[in-house]
Amino acid sequence: MSTFLIPLDSKSRVPIYQQICEYLKAEIQRGRLRAGEKLPSARGLAQNLGISRSTVDLAYDQLVSEGYIEAVPCKGYYICDIDGMYFPKKPIRREEADDASRREQLASPKTQEVFETDFALDGIAPGGFPHHLWKKLARRALAEQEDRLYKPGDPCGEPGLREVLAQYLYQARGVRCVPEQIIVGAGNDYLLLLLGTILGSGRRVAMENPTYLSAYYDFRYTGYEIEAVGQDSLGMKAKELEASRADVAYVMPSHQFPMGMVMPLKRRMELLAWAAAGEERYIVEDDYDSEFRYKGKPVPALQGFDQKDCVIYMGTFSKSLAPTVRVSYMVLPVRLMKQYQSRGGLFAVTVSRADQKILELFLKEGHYERHLNRMRAVYKTKHDLMLREFRELGDLAEISGENAGVHLLVTLKNGLTEQDAVLRAKQAGIRVYGLSQYRIGAAEKIQEHTVVLGYACLEEEEIRAAAKKLKAVWTA
Amino acid sequence: MSTFLIPLDSKSRVPIYQQICEYLKAEIQRGRLRAGEKLPSARGLAQNLGISRSTVDLAYDQLVSEGYIEAVPCKGYYICDIDGMYFPKKPIRREEADDASRREQLASPKTQEVFETDFALDGIAPGGFPHHLWKKLARRALAEQEDRLYKPGDPCGEPGLREVLAQYLYQARGVRCVPEQIIVGAGNDYLLLLLGTILGSGRRVAMENPTYLSAYYDFRYTGYEIEAVGQDSLGMKAKELEASRADVAYVMPSHQFPMGMVMPLKRRMELLAWAAAGEERYIVEDDYDSEFRYKGKPVPALQGFDQKDCVIYMGTFSKSLAPTVRVSYMVLPVRLMKQYQSRGGLFAVTVSRADQKILELFLKEGHYERHLNRMRAVYKTKHDLMLREFRELGDLAEISGENAGVHLLVTLKNGLTEQDAVLRAKQAGIRVYGLSQYRIGAAEKIQEHTVVLGYACLEEEEIRAAAKKLKAVWTA
Repeated sequence: MSTFLIPLDSKSRVPIYQQICEYLKAEIQRGRLRAGEKLPSARGLAQNLGISRSTVDLAYDQLVSEGYIEAVPCKGYYICDIDGMYFPKKPIRREEADDASRREQLASPKTQEVFETDFALDGIAPGGFPHHLWKKLARRALAEQEDRLYKPGDPCGEPGLREVLAQYLYQARGVRCVPEQIIVGAGNDYLLLLLGTILGSGRRVAMENPTYLSAYYDFRYTGYEIEAVGQDSLGMKAKELEASRADVAYVMPSHQFPMGMVMPLKRRMELLAWAAAGEERYIVEDDYDSEFRYKGKPVPALQGFDQKDCVIYMGTFSKSLAPTVRVSYMVLPVRLMKQYQSRGGLFAVTVSRADQKILELFLKEGHYERHLNRMRAVYKTKHDLMLREFRELGDLAEISGENAGVHLLVTLKNGLTEQDAVLRAKQAGIRVYGLSQYRIGAAEKIQEHTVVLGYACLEEEEIRAAAKKLKAVWTA
Repeated sequence: MSTFLIPLDSKSRVPIYQQICEYLKAEIQRGRLRAGEKLPSARGLAQNLGISRSTVDLAYDQLVSEGYIEAVPCKGYYICDIDGMYFPKKPIRREEADDASRREQLASPKTQEVFETDFALDGIAPGGFPHHLWKKLARRALAEQEDRLYKPGDPCGEPGLREVLAQYLYQARGVRCVPEQIIVGAGNDYLLLLLGTILGSGRRVAMENPTYLSAYYDFRYTGYEIEAVGQDSLGMKAKELEASRADVAYVMPSHQFPMGMVMPLKRRMELLAWAAAGEERYIVEDDYDSEFRYKGKPVPALQGFDQKDCVIYMGTFSKSLAPTVRVSYMVLPVRLMKQYQSRGGLFAVTVSRADQKILELFLKEGHYERHLNRMRAVYKTKHDLMLREFRELGDLAEISGENAGVHLLVTLKNGLTEQDAVLRAKQAGIRVYGLSQYRIGAAEKIQEHTVVLGYACLEEEEIRAAAKKLKAVWTA
């Protein structure tokens, strides 16, 4: 081993220690150096190669940390058994034909359409995410927690986050719960699937019609029957709900999606009375965008009035913070917690502890309230602009769903159908959303004249320009 | 407005600009300053209070950013409509009695037991997470992406991450897929629930017995029937599978949990033949800890041999990186992608774009391979130590499930039952896990003599000390 020759190129831009590493790795991978063989001492090798001892030390340290060699105290360095090791490889030329055929089969039939302006219903205001602060909190969350963050966390979510959430929900929304009732999850879809496992099979869910389609599919794929219940200007009709065979009612009382109405207290009480009249009846209250209201006093969450422990309250940070901060939560009635623990409680939490910690700091230190107030001001300006612009249509259109959230509805009164309104907008390079796609039950399709317009993602200038075009094409 | 008096305390530790802010906020909240009212100009107020203009500017900027006042160009500052704003409040004394009763109802019947040493089956080696590097990548991921990170991402996961995953899976595991087939999700439980919505209702799932219980519950709560299929030393018995009425088989061929055997190629081919014999048969291959093998050549994933497009391959970073990096993935057969797009494709991705970006960088830049090699060395040392220690029991015990993963099994041959082994360990302050709890179907309970020992989380010293005690109490 004393005649251990490693070809070194002192003119290369690759540092000497790295050249030694690469050479020894290759020799080990090719099997020319075998498991258990002893390497020359660092001092010996340095002398041999006519380089400094510290350069060899650096190389050996690197090889130890990568698992190629091990240091045996007082003895020296030995080659490890590398069976089962991973060697970074150059990208391999795969069977191109095979890949091509897979790709062809997977190609989407319609290519993505590109619009100049998209009144999209998800997303947030450009620049609306508190990027700088988030990065700072992320650093702190990672630094403060070190090892703890990488052990499995509480399946319900971190106690610290649930504690501040319970406080926030009480103060801002009138929700009454202890932190133990809160389940944190990566988005509403996941939480609704989880809720399905908690409530058990064979349920019938009453949903407002039209409604939030994703929730509709969550329930359907849980195997639940759906009862589409009509709504008037106050929300889900309590009499129709009573007449249905549903034992779960899914509602959005703070700002119904997509219709945008706010359910008044009287109707809320009727829904609670319906739930209280049956042993196993539940209301799912989806409070997805209640953070943004522009007029009138806030109506506290339905959950806060619940005396019978039958409301499942759901909230999310997707709208209020950003859709890819994948954190939602639900507040379970106390009487469902046992069922949760024996069923859903087996599933690991779906949000990383680091993200939960960042959010906890964000709430606890008052950043969330400041953020909401700032965003509310931003969205109110856009909301007011949207109203001003589309009210110029006068008697030709009716605006609804305003005063809360980040979308509103325009119903055309000049005979233009929804399909035509969407098509004409598209021809002008603008994407708007027909109301009919949110309806459950294709059979009872009625001729719609309403489009849904989300304005969170658009700049004021964009709103102005697009509104001008829409008004022109819709009244041409 | 020119006589606008704000009491300032120049001796206070609260900066002057903040005192102005607090005062004005309180006045607005109390309604003494009303929406639409004009504030004095910054210059005027500064003169009035005898302070610098820039201090007032600072205060006004702060109030604008928090949504209390707005700046109208060329006119001045006006009070905003604060209906619906959030005011940070002091924690409110809640109805203590109400909370207390909720907490009482939610109290867990058994208090958490504390053990000196826990041979836990989840978690990773202390210090095993590449903390420093992760923080660096997190900073880069957040910095590089800025706004893009906070728009809704691809429901399947970020294209960049899926691209490097496809390459990694091909090189390391022989999995053949294009990135379009990969679905990223927050943990295997979520992905199995999602898979349930893709495969549709009414399925019968064959599972090895004993098996990974969480998967068992995922399938059960999806509404699937479970067929417990026996296994011999090669894994799930193909004949029993054939005889069952199952149309989905869930297996862990790389390292069965909890039994720890590696399924040889012949048995894998038998399973594939079973799947190919039916139109709508699928194999779910859970490759949860294949990253760590200590002996013998790697057996490529079953998926790589699949000619009939019937294997659903699942992997996770929970074991290889950390359980709270909540990222798992599944590779769907091409023929299931349409079903996915029309069903599960409606659900938003459950992992934040930031986390996906960090992971992409981690894989793309070779850190993952280095990390795996380092951890493999760490775990191999522990694995070898475990073997050495428990083999000292000689004929009194049989060791199995070794050579891969981070757990092994000890079967006592001296008549000691599993229950006694667990109890005696507990009395010595050590937690070990009885095999019987992973069995499906309580009816056919047989007397077990086997305990399962996870060693990832323990230091070598701890393993040595605990093994000594266990050997003593088990042979006493």
